[in-house]
Amino acid sequence: MRLMEEKILQEGQVLPGGILKVGSFLNQQIDTRFLAQMGREIARLYAGEGVSKIMTIEASGIAIAAAAGMAMQVPMVFAKKHKTSNVDGAVYSSTVHSFTHNTDYHIVVSRNYLRPGDRILLVDDFLANGHALRGLMELIRQAGAELVGVAAAIEKGFQGGGDGLRTQGVRVESLAIIDRMDDNGILFRRQ
Amino acid sequence: MRLMEEKILQEGQVLPGGILKVGSFLNQQIDTRFLAQMGREIARLYAGEGVSKIMTIEASGIAIAAAAGMAMQVPMVFAKKHKTSNVDGAVYSSTVHSFTHNTDYHIVVSRNYLRPGDRILLVDDFLANGHALRGLMELIRQAGAELVGVAAAIEKGFQGGGDGLRTQGVRVESLAIIDRMDDNGILFRRQ
Repeated sequence: MRLMEEKILQEGQVLPGGILKVGSFLNQQIDTRFLAQMGREIARLYAGEGVSKIMTIEASGIAIAAAAGMAMQVPMVFAKKHKTSNVDGAVYSSTVHSFTHNTDYHIVVSRNYLRPGDRILLVDDFLANGHALRGLMELIRQAGAELVGVAAAIEKGFQGGGDGLRTQGVRVESLAIIDRMDDNGILFRRQ
Repeated sequence: MRLMEEKILQEGQVLPGGILKVGSFLNQQIDTRFLAQMGREIARLYAGEGVSKIMTIEASGIAIAAAAGMAMQVPMVFAKKHKTSNVDGAVYSSTVHSFTHNTDYHIVVSRNYLRPGDRILLVDDFLANGHALRGLMELIRQAGAELVGVAAAIEKGFQGGGDGLRTQGVRVESLAIIDRMDDNGILFRRQ
């Protein structure tokens, strides 16, 4: 998505340690006109795939998942993060390791909102090492639902999570893929 | 908003302790067609007020704030919750008491995304005692921005937060106001 690459170049800030700050338009502050465009682009990419539900994790994935859900006219559900493992039988849960905070957290979703037969599109703002998405995939597996694919606003190609999923046969569509970024600039993968 | 009252009656679950579960359409799982309608209704209510930015708190306010921002074509910003007080000079911060969890938490927003001259509409999924909104109002005050008003999807009128704000002269618009709820049913305030 050309527009995403332009936004990153105009407003993104590259910080040491492979950090890209896009708080001015994608998380924390959200450019809502651009958000609607992202939603429509995700809908276009996955048109005809019979997606029945969008799924994400709180918090920064919610806006883009909602925009995709509105564009595709399907419900959206978000998994919640918990510090402790939730053994409540009313939820599906899995564990995700956060490299940013060097800690594990648990994600849960009510069994009411993820059903066998659901065709799920996973949506998130960032795709880096893919651990959060793998946690969501585990919830889908527990529910007996089906994964249609993944849509990410920005993929950090150099962290390998997206390509790892592609190698496993998961369809992954990212609105921009960054293969390298440093003081010299940002290199986008040609898609 | 008649449609909100109908959704609450059809899908809401009243639990002991003044708890209303609307996870099937408003938080956790979100009915995205209805979400777009809520956004347009908030835009209609605050049309002509010169709103320059929508503001909310993570996580469950994000979807409705994004929908309102899309309908009004203004940016949306969300405050983040922190366990600890953040003394970083790059943020505005305030403290909110959570009765649900009987604990204090801190909310922060980058100074970059809240500016003097901004005309802010606060949006949230629930308005109960109003403490979270008062925390956001404190951030607006620190920034020297201006509060235009509040829009809530569901106001628990019996908890008094909305009327407390109205008494202070704050414009508060709720898509449904529940004045009483118990085993006998849900009583909506006539608006």
